[in-house]
Amino acid sequence: MRDAYHEQLDSVGHTLVEMAGLVGRALSRATTALLEADLATAEAVISADDAVDALHRELDVRTLDLMARQQPVAGDLRTLVTSLRMSADLERMGDLARHIAKVARMRYPEHAVPQELRPIFEQMGEIGAELAENVARIVEDKDVEAARGIEARDDAVDRLHSAVFMALLAQDSPHTTESAIDVTLLSRYYERFADHAVSVARRLVFLVTGEQ
Amino acid sequence: MRDAYHEQLDSVGHTLVEMAGLVGRALSRATTALLEADLATAEAVISADDAVDALHRELDVRTLDLMARQQPVAGDLRTLVTSLRMSADLERMGDLARHIAKVARMRYPEHAVPQELRPIFEQMGEIGAELAENVARIVEDKDVEAARGIEARDDAVDRLHSAVFMALLAQDSPHTTESAIDVTLLSRYYERFADHAVSVARRLVFLVTGEQ
Repeated sequence: MRDAYHEQLDSVGHTLVEMAGLVGRALSRATTALLEADLATAEAVISADDAVDALHRELDVRTLDLMARQQPVAGDLRTLVTSLRMSADLERMGDLARHIAKVARMRYPEHAVPQELRPIFEQMGEIGAELAENVARIVEDKDVEAARGIEARDDAVDRLHSAVFMALLAQDSPHTTESAIDVTLLSRYYERFADHAVSVARRLVFLVTGEQ
Repeated sequence: MRDAYHEQLDSVGHTLVEMAGLVGRALSRATTALLEADLATAEAVISADDAVDALHRELDVRTLDLMARQQPVAGDLRTLVTSLRMSADLERMGDLARHIAKVARMRYPEHAVPQELRPIFEQMGEIGAELAENVARIVEDKDVEAARGIEARDDAVDRLHSAVFMALLAQDSPHTTESAIDVTLLSRYYERFADHAVSVARRLVFLVTGEQ
């Protein structure tokens, strides 16, 4: 049996895993909303982000309370500070998924992403959601090897981000300025989502191994 | 005389003030580099961000060490956790100034920002640098009233951010797609810089008053 203190430490980790699950699902649905100009799904993603924000705030209170009351030893303290940071990354990932859904909503019933760019965004959405799922698993299992693998998948997102700009700049690209602006911001949101997933993975590696 | 522990707590605050000064100066110079297509200044801003990153890392180590060794009481613990978060905001503000300088460098000897949009970016640069200066003062003086004033200035940045898009979308706008992409990202960097300044100000209000 674990004591109440260690149960509370564990529950911080469980909340992070829950948040990672929620933001992965949010990105996946935001991508659907974006590519299918699906207003109901966009609205659902926008509303659902409140739950991520609430978990983030509640985790903050719980973690600070644990720090103040339990005077944790150095290792536990490092875990708790890292958890606060992971929670901030995950909260931001939720915001970025919401930003994507808001662009879908703003352009409805039009598509924010021109036809020829949809396959790139589809891939960014798939890899981003996969990164969030991996983050959940990595945090749950403290899996350093898997955490290191996240960087390679992030490189794929960076390549897609560049591909978006190349497609916009192609001579025969039929986009409007409005769609160039939308697409630039959307691509940036996916890229940042992936960056924050990498950030969580790096924090896990640092927590477990001490490597920067 | 203050004891060593309280001197260390104070020195965390001093480092935050130093970081805010550096990122304000970085944004100001990045804006010069951008608007004057000044390569040397762009390079200087890009290199100078290493100092902000170093302060951020060093503050992390120092703060975590204080937490682990001194077992601070609740109020000091809250100050230290808030300091870690402010440091993360300031480090990100430095990154955003560096991103702006990198766009200036990438387009040199051309101007990344078309002539007609330069006044808007000049204002965003001025307000952004002013926000960083205010952040330095607010953190130094724990000035809650001044911290509350930061939001109003951030609204001005948001209006300028919208003005950029309206200018790009104007019928007679002579921009190329390349410059629409550059300008969209640049405007986003300034907006995010200001958002992080607001975030530091809100953290200060919360620290001093307990208000969310």
